[in-house]
Amino acid sequence: MQTTPGIKDVYAARPHVYQYMSASPLLNHAGISNLLGTQVWIKHENHNPTGAFKVRGGLNLAASLSETERTAGLFSASTGNHGQSIAYAAMKHGVKATIAVPEGANPGKVKSMQNLGAEVLFYGSDFDSSRIWVQELAQKQGGRFVTPTEPALIAGVGTYALEIIQSLPEVEIIIVPVGAGSGVCATAIVAKSLNPDIQIIGVQSRQAPAMQLSWQKREMLEAEMQTTAEGLATRVPFENTQTIMRDLLDDFILVDDALIDEATLLLMQNTHNLVEGAGAASMAAAMSMMPKIKGHKTVLIMSGGNQSLERLKALL
Amino acid sequence: MQTTPGIKDVYAARPHVYQYMSASPLLNHAGISNLLGTQVWIKHENHNPTGAFKVRGGLNLAASLSETERTAGLFSASTGNHGQSIAYAAMKHGVKATIAVPEGANPGKVKSMQNLGAEVLFYGSDFDSSRIWVQELAQKQGGRFVTPTEPALIAGVGTYALEIIQSLPEVEIIIVPVGAGSGVCATAIVAKSLNPDIQIIGVQSRQAPAMQLSWQKREMLEAEMQTTAEGLATRVPFENTQTIMRDLLDDFILVDDALIDEATLLLMQNTHNLVEGAGAASMAAAMSMMPKIKGHKTVLIMSGGNQSLERLKALL
Repeated sequence: MQTTPGIKDVYAARPHVYQYMSASPLLNHAGISNLLGTQVWIKHENHNPTGAFKVRGGLNLAASLSETERTAGLFSASTGNHGQSIAYAAMKHGVKATIAVPEGANPGKVKSMQNLGAEVLFYGSDFDSSRIWVQELAQKQGGRFVTPTEPALIAGVGTYALEIIQSLPEVEIIIVPVGAGSGVCATAIVAKSLNPDIQIIGVQSRQAPAMQLSWQKREMLEAEMQTTAEGLATRVPFENTQTIMRDLLDDFILVDDALIDEATLLLMQNTHNLVEGAGAASMAAAMSMMPKIKGHKTVLIMSGGNQSLERLKALL
Repeated sequence: MQTTPGIKDVYAARPHVYQYMSASPLLNHAGISNLLGTQVWIKHENHNPTGAFKVRGGLNLAASLSETERTAGLFSASTGNHGQSIAYAAMKHGVKATIAVPEGANPGKVKSMQNLGAEVLFYGSDFDSSRIWVQELAQKQGGRFVTPTEPALIAGVGTYALEIIQSLPEVEIIIVPVGAGSGVCATAIVAKSLNPDIQIIGVQSRQAPAMQLSWQKREMLEAEMQTTAEGLATRVPFENTQTIMRDLLDDFILVDDALIDEATLLLMQNTHNLVEGAGAASMAAAMSMMPKIKGHKTVLIMSGGNQSLERLKALL
């Protein structure tokens, strides 16, 4: 596979993804359409195993391991949806997952990965040190170290975009939350290959704008990271996804965390889904650009549902 | 169709159901399996359009209307998942839904049905008077009055049971929340036809035990109704579902509302789904009978996710 995956790679990922999961629902929630004043569908990636879109990427990547890599298994550093995706894919493929996290990482998230059979190793005081350490460990043991924006992950994730266009070929706008950028790149690669008129709009929190700023200025810029939406919390931009985004993205907007919180509650009330901050960011974006989407068939990616009860309590 | 539908009726319902929705996920959540000490799968009927299993019944029923009935449309009395199912099915089939509710009915639920295009009429001080009134209205106008346990509804609902047995033929126990009984009857009809060894266990709240008492004593018994789980809140038992249950149900247990609340939170924490009380009752039942399910492949029906934010706030 090239550094930048193409739609052929997404087609090739389909059997690997659908061996272990089904297509996710694309639902037109009347309450949300009424609120936004246009026809809106929600792509429920929160209904996937592990509760997030990332699982598709893990499943595709794990299907292409060499025999040496299978013996030592997958290595990564994450307590979030990426880590769970790697743990889940490893379990399904009968290989070991080793996930490094900093000392004091969220015990609930550590437990989720352990429940999926992953070995969780505590090392260092932040993710940078955990990641560097586990990458070396993978190298020593001949395992496969996985970063969050690898081409095989993007190709796997692209299967949700194919599902959207197959069931709603008349879609005009797709709004995608951006963390590391694998979701928005996968969506843009698929949509622009099949129908370049489909507008792809990324959204990030104004409290963590590194990816948006880098896209806008066309250079790699770090930025402050204060958002409570873990899936959008990128401090250092990713180069390969930035390259794809510069080619294919129609717009990239910022929304305040406060609007994401409001969107989270509106989604729970109107769709009865538990949604995490990143998963609600597409709704927040739609709320902030109602005149632009009016009259256009719009899909919001609900990228994940892994909200904690503590955060939910605070929100309510 | 006979009064008691058979598996042939369920097979016949499939095209009507899948014209407007997809199979729901059956997921093995590692956290839940670990908590319960056995392999557990959750059937996510909360992921359906309208957020509940009932939509399947409405879609099947609406597909078989006569021309006269199509002109006047569907009539029912409900603010709950049954009402939304009828409204959704009517909308998809291009017929009118008229739903009667008592004065002062929950405005959020009324709005949900209006969002689905239903005409909501306020009449009387309780559901009994609304129902009698709307049944007469349906008769006058030549429309189709729909009760919650009609054979066509049960046959439609049975499609979820077929999905379970197709994707997990080795299932040994299925636990189903009971309100009016259409879900548990549909599950038992399908399971017992395909593999009589599958144990079907119903669950109701101890704070609304009319269906359980009637099943146990083999006579129609009303009971107090104090549960906060709307989907389990049956005061007067339904005769046709009782007849089926007496033939096919292996066990029928009661759980306290307090255990349902605990199960609701555990499900949110471990599966990241918003779940309503009835939808969590199968988990509560499993928690109360862990020795019995140990070593057996068990499916819990998460029948619906339509929890209100007010109730959720109180729970947290």
